[in-house]
Amino acid sequence: MSLSHFDDAGQAHMVDVSDKEVTDRIAVAEGRVVMKPETLAYVLQGTAKKGDVLGIARIAGIMAAKKTADLIPLCHPLPITKVTLDLDPDESLPGVHIRATVKTSGQTGVEMEALTAVSAAALTVYDMLKAVEKSMQIEGIRVVLKDGGKSGRYEA
Amino acid sequence: MSLSHFDDAGQAHMVDVSDKEVTDRIAVAEGRVVMKPETLAYVLQGTAKKGDVLGIARIAGIMAAKKTADLIPLCHPLPITKVTLDLDPDESLPGVHIRATVKTSGQTGVEMEALTAVSAAALTVYDMLKAVEKSMQIEGIRVVLKDGGKSGRYEA
Amino acid sequence: MSLSHFDDAGQAHMVDVSDKEVTDRIAVAEGRVVMKPETLAYVLQGTAKKGDVLGIARIAGIMAAKKTADLIPLCHPLPITKVTLDLDPDESLPGVHIRATVKTSGQTGVEMEALTAVSAAALTVYDMLKAVEKSMQIEGIRVVLKDGGKSGRYEA
Amino acid sequence: MSLSHFDDAGQAHMVDVSDKEVTDRIAVAEGRVVMKPETLAYVLQGTAKKGDVLGIARIAGIMAAKKTADLIPLCHPLPITKVTLDLDPDESLPGVHIRATVKTSGQTGVEMEALTAVSAAALTVYDMLKAVEKSMQIEGIRVVLKDGGKSGRYEA
Amino acid sequence: MSLSHFDDAGQAHMVDVSDKEVTDRIAVAEGRVVMKPETLAYVLQGTAKKGDVLGIARIAGIMAAKKTADLIPLCHPLPITKVTLDLDPDESLPGVHIRATVKTSGQTGVEMEALTAVSAAALTVYDMLKAVEKSMQIEGIRVVLKDGGKSGRYEA
Amino acid sequence: MSLSHFDDAGQAHMVDVSDKEVTDRIAVAEGRVVMKPETLAYVLQGTAKKGDVLGIARIAGIMAAKKTADLIPLCHPLPITKVTLDLDPDESLPGVHIRATVKTSGQTGVEMEALTAVSAAALTVYDMLKAVEKSMQIEGIRVVLKDGGKSGRYEA
Repeated sequence: MSLSHFDDAGQAHMVDVSDKEVTDRIAVAEGRVVMKPETLAYVLQGTAKKGDVLGIARIAGIMAAKKTADLIPLCHPLPITKVTLDLDPDESLPGVHIRATVKTSGQTGVEMEALTAVSAAALTVYDMLKAVEKSMQIEGIRVVLKDGGKSGRYEA
Repeated sequence: MSLSHFDDAGQAHMVDVSDKEVTDRIAVAEGRVVMKPETLAYVLQGTAKKGDVLGIARIAGIMAAKKTADLIPLCHPLPITKVTLDLDPDESLPGVHIRATVKTSGQTGVEMEALTAVSAAALTVYDMLKAVEKSMQIEGIRVVLKDGGKSGRYEA
Repeated sequence: MSLSHFDDAGQAHMVDVSDKEVTDRIAVAEGRVVMKPETLAYVLQGTAKKGDVLGIARIAGIMAAKKTADLIPLCHPLPITKVTLDLDPDESLPGVHIRATVKTSGQTGVEMEALTAVSAAALTVYDMLKAVEKSMQIEGIRVVLKDGGKSGRYEA
Repeated sequence: MSLSHFDDAGQAHMVDVSDKEVTDRIAVAEGRVVMKPETLAYVLQGTAKKGDVLGIARIAGIMAAKKTADLIPLCHPLPITKVTLDLDPDESLPGVHIRATVKTSGQTGVEMEALTAVSAAALTVYDMLKAVEKSMQIEGIRVVLKDGGKSGRYEA
Repeated sequence: MSLSHFDDAGQAHMVDVSDKEVTDRIAVAEGRVVMKPETLAYVLQGTAKKGDVLGIARIAGIMAAKKTADLIPLCHPLPITKVTLDLDPDESLPGVHIRATVKTSGQTGVEMEALTAVSAAALTVYDMLKAVEKSMQIEGIRVVLKDGGKSGRYEA
Repeated sequence: MSLSHFDDAGQAHMVDVSDKEVTDRIAVAEGRVVMKPETLAYVLQGTAKKGDVLGIARIAGIMAAKKTADLIPLCHPLPITKVTLDLDPDESLPGVHIRATVKTSGQTGVEMEALTAVSAAALTVYDMLKAVEKSMQIEGIRVVLKDGGKSGRYEA
């Protein structure tokens, strides 16, 4: 097996997908921002009342999904047909779980779009809370589901 | 203490930094992409000979640092004066360590730029290698150094 | 009826359009920039001879239509197949009428693209003329025609 | 008086501001989205409970302010130091009032940034509510305050 | 024959392609950066050992192809399905030959994408080497192949 | 002498300019689009009467100058203070001469901005005229003046 992003001479290229079928594709990615309990308290308070950290991170994730091909050098531009982001605060972490679901009808998969959405949402959570804690960490960004292409269904 | 990204009514805004001094600022962030040993073998082979995964991820990280204010909703645009990315394969992980250093002369810090650079480089590593492994994970994205602003030096 | 941009829990998402048919769609939007007669005189003079305010605003509107999904958080990216902008100076206003027509073959409508084109053209007219009048106003931006999707023809 | 965006031959250029002083500058712009009372009801309900139309439009406006030089052809890129957006539902309109305040330390004014923020927020309000009303109109976009440059204070 | 980018009144528009067939399209463009032999020596040394000028220019070209519609005012946005860039150092020039191949399944051709990729790669070569030579020149950017649309095959 | 865009290990980075002085800088670049006499006739006719090829290419060049750091991987973002583009049709070429002048007050030069402006204007000229001639060529893109930094004045 070889890395499809390189040709036989080892030079990077954007892979030719013109002969791949246009099919419905879906990908789900997840990750989490780990923080101190007192930092999470700001999130919980904000969600309930005001200062909506998670709502803004959600928008950042959705918008970033649309910029994936602009950020990842060899990624194909894709007409995304759906993006959702779930951000769930979790006191046992403590922190915020992030999950992104992306769909397209296209010739390549959308796992990079889902991963990019999770990453941007996590970065935005960090940005919104960094005034109260600099030691937050972004952890466990990974693909949990990918389906709809020739390589079949992948589930983590 | 309150979250500076929200006003007294809890509405998000881009904080007024116009009275902050223009000072030299630096931030360092890090993270890692964890993968199977056989996946890392592709990276090591590529770096040594051809198919330069880390070189492309480095460029993606540098370019993403310049797009930070475009991705993070409440981030100030900043004239970045330096970006470096170190990507070190590590067989004991196994995976790739990523470290970004960003500098500016400006009125706000550049930790978001450093974190964004690390995230984009990690996503690009994933993209380049996903044909051989879908179960890679991005871990431990965090700020390790921030210096030069009013809030003083932070070191993790 | 509920707002399609929110799920049942009230969280924003980019609506799933993957099951909608790919159809030919068109939208027309309009608006106007109202100014003093002596400001309009610069436009008329420019169009006739040199300093082409309306030509530059037209290009700004066309380019903005292509950036709609980048500006409007929950908008789907769409492969636009046509954009035209008409900018008509009107001494009875006095000011400039702007009308944008956008077409696509896609799964969602293009009224946001048409409205964005009109807005950017209007802002550019303002920018080009603000040295001579700061009190210009942008008025009456609205959709006048939308056709081609499941919700049928809308005409204002 | 002549239009500064054109040279003596009538050709468009980005005006030379390199000899202008770097000063603190502020601009305030406003506008409104006019809708049916039953459409406004969705906004009010959303703000109070869930489906936060105004919160998302606020973020869209802030992010658009940072893209002004990308949208308006002859606009100088500027290091914005503050952006706030106020969106106030008004049953007597009925509709939503939008007001943007932008600050910079720079060589040109920020009224285009403020106008662009208002426009993008208004377009986003339209986008979020268009499923329930297509006949909304964006009205009265204008500069209400500009201060800090050589041309002095302007107040509408 | 008339210029399709203008309507009968001479006003610029983005041409209506909605009735054109979706077909597989390809375009190849080329160009070169001419430099002193001692400047080329840096490229050759870099490619062989370290400081990979051509690898970075290749990535810049691929990413620029995806930004074509953002740079060229009347260009249609297109879902690119393949981009490759070949950069060949040539001591007889002396300099670097650049060739880009772009494919799409769409309603318009991709020669602008191929030309843009070559231009961005050439500019990046210049940028990487300008510390050692400012007198480099970019020459001979042209389309060498275009195929797949209604206007038939073009070969230079 | 070594290439400043690479560190001692040969890895690409965005050079640290934080210790360089903020000075007024200027760069001038030029290039040309060579075409058949009958193609140039369209340009001349357009400029004189309608269908303004050169006016649109001028705007494309100005806007591209602002996107330079987005296109050239290791380029520093810069607050441009002036951009002008001159496009002169020349029947003896036959074709169009393009010249861009860019100024900034910053820590690095603006020759990449000037070269990018010329390139984008040339590509736009090609795009506007390609319906009548595919064999046009872009030639002679180079820096003709650079001044204001530590490395002194360069004149071609």
